[in-house]
Amino acid sequence: MEHSINGGRGSTSTNNGVDKGVDFANYFCTYAYLYHQKEMLCDRVRMDAYYNAVFKNKEHFFGKNSFFSLYCAVVCDLSIFYWSWVGLDFSKLAKKTVLDVGTGSGILAIWSAQAGARKVYAVEATKMSDHARELVKANNLEDVVEVIEGTVEDIDLPEKGKYPSHARMWVAPIRSGLGDQKTSDFESSMDDWYRFVDETKTDYGVDMGVLTKPFSEEQRKYYLQTSMWNNLHPNQVIGVPAIIKEIDCLTATVNEVLNVRASFSSSITLDDTRFCGFGGWFDVHFRGSKESPARHEIELTTAPSLDNGTHWGQQVFLVHPPLRVQDSDELVVSFTMTRSKENHRLMEVEFNCDMRSSSGKQIRPFAKKFFIE
Amino acid sequence: MEHSINGGRGSTSTNNGVDKGVDFANYFCTYAYLYHQKEMLCDRVRMDAYYNAVFKNKEHFFGKNSFFSLYCAVVCDLSIFYWSWVGLDFSKLAKKTVLDVGTGSGILAIWSAQAGARKVYAVEATKMSDHARELVKANNLEDVVEVIEGTVEDIDLPEKGKYPSHARMWVAPIRSGLGDQKTSDFESSMDDWYRFVDETKTDYGVDMGVLTKPFSEEQRKYYLQTSMWNNLHPNQVIGVPAIIKEIDCLTATVNEVLNVRASFSSSITLDDTRFCGFGGWFDVHFRGSKESPARHEIELTTAPSLDNGTHWGQQVFLVHPPLRVQDSDELVVSFTMTRSKENHRLMEVEFNCDMRSSSGKQIRPFAKKFFIE
Repeated sequence: MEHSINGGRGSTSTNNGVDKGVDFANYFCTYAYLYHQKEMLCDRVRMDAYYNAVFKNKEHFFGKNSFFSLYCAVVCDLSIFYWSWVGLDFSKLAKKTVLDVGTGSGILAIWSAQAGARKVYAVEATKMSDHARELVKANNLEDVVEVIEGTVEDIDLPEKGKYPSHARMWVAPIRSGLGDQKTSDFESSMDDWYRFVDETKTDYGVDMGVLTKPFSEEQRKYYLQTSMWNNLHPNQVIGVPAIIKEIDCLTATVNEVLNVRASFSSSITLDDTRFCGFGGWFDVHFRGSKESPARHEIELTTAPSLDNGTHWGQQVFLVHPPLRVQDSDELVVSFTMTRSKENHRLMEVEFNCDMRSSSGKQIRPFAKKFFIE
Repeated sequence: MEHSINGGRGSTSTNNGVDKGVDFANYFCTYAYLYHQKEMLCDRVRMDAYYNAVFKNKEHFFGKNSFFSLYCAVVCDLSIFYWSWVGLDFSKLAKKTVLDVGTGSGILAIWSAQAGARKVYAVEATKMSDHARELVKANNLEDVVEVIEGTVEDIDLPEKGKYPSHARMWVAPIRSGLGDQKTSDFESSMDDWYRFVDETKTDYGVDMGVLTKPFSEEQRKYYLQTSMWNNLHPNQVIGVPAIIKEIDCLTATVNEVLNVRASFSSSITLDDTRFCGFGGWFDVHFRGSKESPARHEIELTTAPSLDNGTHWGQQVFLVHPPLRVQDSDELVVSFTMTRSKENHRLMEVEFNCDMRSSSGKQIRPFAKKFFIE
């Protein structure tokens, strides 16, 4: 089988208008480093969840009428933080065999083979595929695991199948000192800008004042409107977490996950605290299918945790200045997430919030837009 | 005039096989931020050099038979560190007018107009062109300065002209503690890897040993074979700097600057010190042309300096372990610099060194390859 693409140098557009070369420069390139693979392989919460999902459900790999596929990797990456679904065709997964999309070093493909899979297709877009192939060979599994260099949209697989898993996206109100810090960084940056405008006028005869507004917008976006990776402490969560998206991987279509829209409310659970924004995370479940349920259901959650943090951490969306809130105040939120038009790997998120105070006090509704990078 | 390109989203290949979209994702994107423009505008050594080159040579802008063009920006960026010449056509510059390639915020174009130029074409590949246009307008120069969004390869200009400037690339032997630090970082990273291989075998049943060599190569490249931006102290230079390339911008062709090959020797000027690698920098001169020499020749140098450092700093190429050298030892070097095949914005550099000890002691010749990112 010949499934290679011109990694990083091609200018082929796929049918959804994505320039493969640009996509490599913007996104895939990271996964071509063993250093980054190792980072993921050292996340023991992630490793244990996948390991248990495979080895506690071995019957899925060798059972007579069982279906299984390690779609989990993609489902995780499809979360609010790691969106890697580019026009993924759901009809291409393999029956009675395993398809590992974005196999990276190949670890999940190897486990599947070790657990008894008849055939594993391990698809990897970057040159990491060469290392995965070596690893498969070194672990004596080259008869079972076939590593394919390419993107899942490009390859043809002989079989079709079903999916085992469920995924959910969560959001909760949080408190955090990050907003104060970012606001202060933004203000320093603007002070510095005004000094620069003065000096450039005086010393070099050019009035830069007209760029103050766009500079301020650029800096505001960078410091205050871009969500951040953060490992939240559980006690930073100040309200009831809400599910903003559930994905049934057995039935989901691309259109279903392209945009996320949700209305939810969250009760504040701490008295007299600061509402500083939202934290977002995801979980996935390995339940198998209706015809062939998992014997041992495994959950992988990236929720704030003292002992079981993951390399995904949480994504933080800061609202500044913070609002003082009380126990039982109700936060009513309308949430949307869409793809950036400029770079389909980036997401834009909007929160429209209404606060219903338990004391009857009125708080003005507010809207806030964020960019996820 | 309509000169726009589909910034960042196109997949057009130019005639030299460069994918514009990839080029934007890899390189141009940085220049679309006012933050980065401000960083360059706050480099007072750069600003003063350009400012003086323009205003101390005003006759070039309004004189009868004078030619001038602010090619300097590109010439600087064409140095060993900032290679921005992509199949640049040297026949396209403007006579009696100014062409500013990569105008950014437009500062050089504005100065040229203020100094008396009849017409300034300010070419900018990114959306920064919108800000430059605003700035031109706010400084009441829209009749003189025409901002064109596009790359210099793509645009057509009505006039042809000559170039004023000279550029040189320099290399010198240096001492530095960075090599020890990077070597120690590399060793820690490998220690960590061996632990990871053990644990993955024990806890997850997969032997990762086969990836040790490629991981080590990847990390070696990252820590020890990639050149680094650094602001060298003048006393870190331990030998006589050598010129590895001179560019006469009046006559230079693309082929002449595509690869740099040089043989040079450098005498060590300090006794009993450590030779830890090479520092590289550039300078440019504004001399005008033979027919119309500059009244005031201006030099812009990015050499190591206590008081006149620039945002370019120097590029450092570490050789580890260091060699102990003595006053008057002679370093004989063959140097090559070529473009990376994977990404034409990156350069690969090789030093082949022979050390002729003043005491007659023999030191083994060595070769070292580096990647510039």
